[in-house]
Amino acid sequence: MAAPSVKTVGVIGTGVIGSSWTLFFLARGLKVIVTDPAPGARERLEKYLIQEWPTMQRAGLHREASLANCRFVDNIFDHLKGIDVVQETGPERIDFKRELFAKLDAKARSDTLLLSSSSGIPSSQFVTDCKYNPGRVMIGHPFNPPHMVPLVEVVPHPGAKEPYITAAVEFYLSLGKKPILVKKETPGFIANRLQMALNNEAYSLVSRGIISAAELDTCITAGPGLRWSTTGPFVTNILGGGGSFRHLVEHIGTAAQVWAEDMRKHAFDLNPETISILDANVRETIGNVDMESLQRDRDHVLLDLIALKSQTPSFK
Amino acid sequence: MAAPSVKTVGVIGTGVIGSSWTLFFLARGLKVIVTDPAPGARERLEKYLIQEWPTMQRAGLHREASLANCRFVDNIFDHLKGIDVVQETGPERIDFKRELFAKLDAKARSDTLLLSSSSGIPSSQFVTDCKYNPGRVMIGHPFNPPHMVPLVEVVPHPGAKEPYITAAVEFYLSLGKKPILVKKETPGFIANRLQMALNNEAYSLVSRGIISAAELDTCITAGPGLRWSTTGPFVTNILGGGGSFRHLVEHIGTAAQVWAEDMRKHAFDLNPETISILDANVRETIGNVDMESLQRDRDHVLLDLIALKSQTPSFK
Repeated sequence: MAAPSVKTVGVIGTGVIGSSWTLFFLARGLKVIVTDPAPGARERLEKYLIQEWPTMQRAGLHREASLANCRFVDNIFDHLKGIDVVQETGPERIDFKRELFAKLDAKARSDTLLLSSSSGIPSSQFVTDCKYNPGRVMIGHPFNPPHMVPLVEVVPHPGAKEPYITAAVEFYLSLGKKPILVKKETPGFIANRLQMALNNEAYSLVSRGIISAAELDTCITAGPGLRWSTTGPFVTNILGGGGSFRHLVEHIGTAAQVWAEDMRKHAFDLNPETISILDANVRETIGNVDMESLQRDRDHVLLDLIALKSQTPSFK
Repeated sequence: MAAPSVKTVGVIGTGVIGSSWTLFFLARGLKVIVTDPAPGARERLEKYLIQEWPTMQRAGLHREASLANCRFVDNIFDHLKGIDVVQETGPERIDFKRELFAKLDAKARSDTLLLSSSSGIPSSQFVTDCKYNPGRVMIGHPFNPPHMVPLVEVVPHPGAKEPYITAAVEFYLSLGKKPILVKKETPGFIANRLQMALNNEAYSLVSRGIISAAELDTCITAGPGLRWSTTGPFVTNILGGGGSFRHLVEHIGTAAQVWAEDMRKHAFDLNPETISILDANVRETIGNVDMESLQRDRDHVLLDLIALKSQTPSFK
């Protein structure tokens, strides 16, 4: 199966992630067959797609892109023969996914990729009842919101097979995504582990009274976060080492060990008391957030930033 | 002392950080008296300032900004009476800083702020020999490159005094920087601890063969890094929790504990063997970096991103 041959994607679930995937696939010129058993799901999806379509137009649509390519169905199993890729976004429950994927595997064409958006459950835990071709089941974990953020983590279980793994990576690549291939299943995959490592230290520093939640946020958005939008940890280290990663880690090694030891000593423990301390600090120093204007501003900046990077040779 | 009254800054050291500070202060319309005992320092600084001035012009100069406001001197102690703020960027050695600050404290006006750019040595460790007014000595730690990245960590030692602490924060604010006030001295301050927490997990994942160094970088620059350029950890949590920080941390609590436990189990140990594994992976998957074009592209994107944010209400 070659990725460019994908014409139709099946999206299961129309929550925050499923709606965003649907919007994205439509903007990339694909046909989308989508389902969700929740009452009112179809109407909510339609409203969302109409509302967000101008954003996708501004970012640039595929020449065949059209909202008319979206078809909401009650029973997706009746339509699986025409679906090239399934992008599942159902509840994060192993039993649910196990039953769903067994049924998808039984009824889909044998070459249809079955991808789960799960952010935490590795596919080895729910591929167990797939009797036909479990080798084409794997994780395709997006980063919220999927229609804006390029990252997709492709995480095959140990029984996943070529050419499906490559096909999944190429499918996302063909849509302009930035897929990364995670070679071994690991709790939280990659991005959420990295984010959690940083967040835990952030929670520790604020709960210890060293800095306010608002100022910690500034510390990221006006400092490392700015740089991380262009260069990742390793390239940042190479730049810091005057061209040599080894030089940098050897150079900062001793100081880094002292910091790491101090961080271990003060490792954050999530419990009702620490949650309350953090929550109080967040309320006091950040206060109420106007969700709508913040998300609009964030999406606006992300869109321009992604466009800016795509025009810059080092970050294409 | 009121921050707007600052007319002249003394910069000690013209390495990477000192040169960049000098460029920044000049662009903001200040007079800079700068010194460095290294052979050829004056010529290197002049070359750098001329080379980088167009970037500062593009970002927007203060109406009084001029390269003619820079004066390189051999002995800065002869000029201290005319200096309102000292920004020190000397070697990261306690003995060096202890002697230097004792002398600065003895010879500067009593209202001159004495700020150190140290990224790791808290000022309590080198303020010990200051006999006159140690209350105006503190850390003003920039993030590389200081002429681009807005973050400055202001870290007072326990004996630092108001109104100097407020004056330091207001000094940086008046120049368009984003200073944060660190309430207690802590190894690595804030930004480097957060960065190190993430880096250590990155090193662990790559050295364990779970992902390549190149793909880990993509994971940040196409995912969380993009978002962190706009929203920090806490506001990101608020958005993820539908407006409530508490909702988010309680919701992801259980999964997060599993990830945290797995991260602790695989905590990175920096030693010659792990450095070699990482360095080999960096060489194989990232390869040689064209430093000059990468830095130029990065600065270009950062400059546009900072301008974009400054025009966006939520991120001003």
